[in-house]
Amino acid sequence: MASARIALDAFGGDHCPRHEVEGAVAAARAGVHVVLVGDREQLERELAGVADRGSLPLSIHHAPDRITMDDHPGRAVRAKPEASMPVCFDLVRKGEADAVMSAGNSGAMLACGLFKYRRLRGVDRPAIVAALPNAEGFTFVLDVGANVECRPVNFVQFAIMGAAYARFKGGRAVPRVGVMSNGSEDGKGTDLTRAAHELLGAHPSEDFAYVGYAEGKGVFDGSLDVVVTDGFTGNVALKVVEATGRLIGGWLRAAVTADLRSKLGALLLRPAFARLRERMNPDSYGAAPLLGVDGVAWICHGGATPFAISVALQQAARSVDEGLMPQLAEALARNAAVVTAAKDAARDDPAAAAARKEG
Amino acid sequence: MASARIALDAFGGDHCPRHEVEGAVAAARAGVHVVLVGDREQLERELAGVADRGSLPLSIHHAPDRITMDDHPGRAVRAKPEASMPVCFDLVRKGEADAVMSAGNSGAMLACGLFKYRRLRGVDRPAIVAALPNAEGFTFVLDVGANVECRPVNFVQFAIMGAAYARFKGGRAVPRVGVMSNGSEDGKGTDLTRAAHELLGAHPSEDFAYVGYAEGKGVFDGSLDVVVTDGFTGNVALKVVEATGRLIGGWLRAAVTADLRSKLGALLLRPAFARLRERMNPDSYGAAPLLGVDGVAWICHGGATPFAISVALQQAARSVDEGLMPQLAEALARNAAVVTAAKDAARDDPAAAAARKEG
Repeated sequence: MASARIALDAFGGDHCPRHEVEGAVAAARAGVHVVLVGDREQLERELAGVADRGSLPLSIHHAPDRITMDDHPGRAVRAKPEASMPVCFDLVRKGEADAVMSAGNSGAMLACGLFKYRRLRGVDRPAIVAALPNAEGFTFVLDVGANVECRPVNFVQFAIMGAAYARFKGGRAVPRVGVMSNGSEDGKGTDLTRAAHELLGAHPSEDFAYVGYAEGKGVFDGSLDVVVTDGFTGNVALKVVEATGRLIGGWLRAAVTADLRSKLGALLLRPAFARLRERMNPDSYGAAPLLGVDGVAWICHGGATPFAISVALQQAARSVDEGLMPQLAEALARNAAVVTAAKDAARDDPAAAAARKEG
Repeated sequence: MASARIALDAFGGDHCPRHEVEGAVAAARAGVHVVLVGDREQLERELAGVADRGSLPLSIHHAPDRITMDDHPGRAVRAKPEASMPVCFDLVRKGEADAVMSAGNSGAMLACGLFKYRRLRGVDRPAIVAALPNAEGFTFVLDVGANVECRPVNFVQFAIMGAAYARFKGGRAVPRVGVMSNGSEDGKGTDLTRAAHELLGAHPSEDFAYVGYAEGKGVFDGSLDVVVTDGFTGNVALKVVEATGRLIGGWLRAAVTADLRSKLGALLLRPAFARLRERMNPDSYGAAPLLGVDGVAWICHGGATPFAISVALQQAARSVDEGLMPQLAEALARNAAVVTAAKDAARDDPAAAAARKEG
């Protein structure tokens, strides 16, 4: 089976196009077909030193413009149709690529997904899914940035998509889902989380087991497969996790180089620390798919390293080759009645919503 | 100078009254006057084995009832006036103690603070302040749980109180303050954070330097002294930090015991790891003051160990002895005009608020 072709926005990340090109070359060497999208001249220059370029499944598609981190997502996508990011989506629409990847403006990725791919049937708001390592594997957290403000029914759709993704990634058949909250008791949370908690409790799906409120503990101890939250809270949590990891990593480095005895110990621990470093390195698992649009789109960290981009390109290719989209569409179709019932309940119950507010 | 007398709710935490009693004994041995508040008979039983009890500044005040984690905060405080937690506040009001500490229901602590102490002048919403370790010292994050829903002007008051607390804890004269957000650009964040960001930018105080939006990175890299946020986001972030630390701690333990070579390395690193464990242990700094009420109240984690409670009691005593309350009141008085201007701006500008919403 030929690998999927990934249109890589080569002018997205903080270190573009160098990191993108290096990541693309590494992924191409691993067999992924990559189309580098962006200014052809600059890309040719970056590729000049790659000796085996002729043998790699790597091509360039020229795009003269770029969307920056400071651009307003929706406006930029309309105002800059020739920018590398929207051109990537056009390539997929024309059948010249199978998926898009970018380390650029994630709001613009969402806007492109909505304008160019359209929404999947059964989805009001697409979501970005982060894989956070837990004691046993991964917990999938969504949304981590697509929707700063959410409605309760969005959480039901996030649960369906998150569960489908957890299954796709090899997790259990009926993933356990929680709603991110500031406590486990029913009365905790915001108006939004309480309403989502009630909807998820009242409208069960055969596709996942709703467990209730999740605190930080539940994200990391292996007791949950999926945690649903609004894109603001999810993004803050994700960045706090990464920053905590960096802080502890720095402490650890300082501890093992403090004196000769510690340095000797660290020498003996070198293989163990290498494994630990790999576990702690978000580059190994840090790319995130945008779920809920009718096409494959992956988002990398703005600061993504070439290694991170290479891993992400391989993940994106696998998600095409192994049929993520059909599985997602099936899960949404299977749960159409659950979503409709939840929407009706949310609509019919303004008094309950007000009461919760007074609470 | 005689140390402050702390009224300790001995029936608050998950392991009460054992952890409370053990923590109180340790703090009393360090010179803190502790009044254990709760069921006298049970407390006497817990203290039975303490040989030096007679020489310790430790007493019992009987309270026949208790507030549990499942109790509704506001209702419980009214319905259970004889519970150990509200009785602690009564002791301070009667002049028989100088501060309250509890590892119990933090919502009930807030309710007690509001009903029994009243609010400090210049504060609409009290806040719980967490100290998170950063690369250079601590970042103080508030609110981490008192107010699930906030208004923009609350953030201005949190900034004033957080800056006063950072100064009290020995930080720089003009602390650097950020608003927790999902990105550093002005357009990021929710309606709430954008409005708070604008208010803080437009109404500068001589007491702190408003730096702008903070992401996870800013919390931990030493570039900020204070991060203000709503109590839901702050609480989620705090719990995610703790859970990340536990996860990495578990990985580290697994790494250093994986084989003989690693175990030998770990033996050499024992002193270094002991220091690291201390840095990573939230028990050393995990107690949090409730700021904005007219009296001293400290909150511990429900699962607090005796060590954590002992450290917290000493911190609480120091906050009384070193005059936290007068410093806080002075800071609020000094910034009364800033708060008034921010309130006027927030009130006068419903159109701007709506425009932000449309965005």
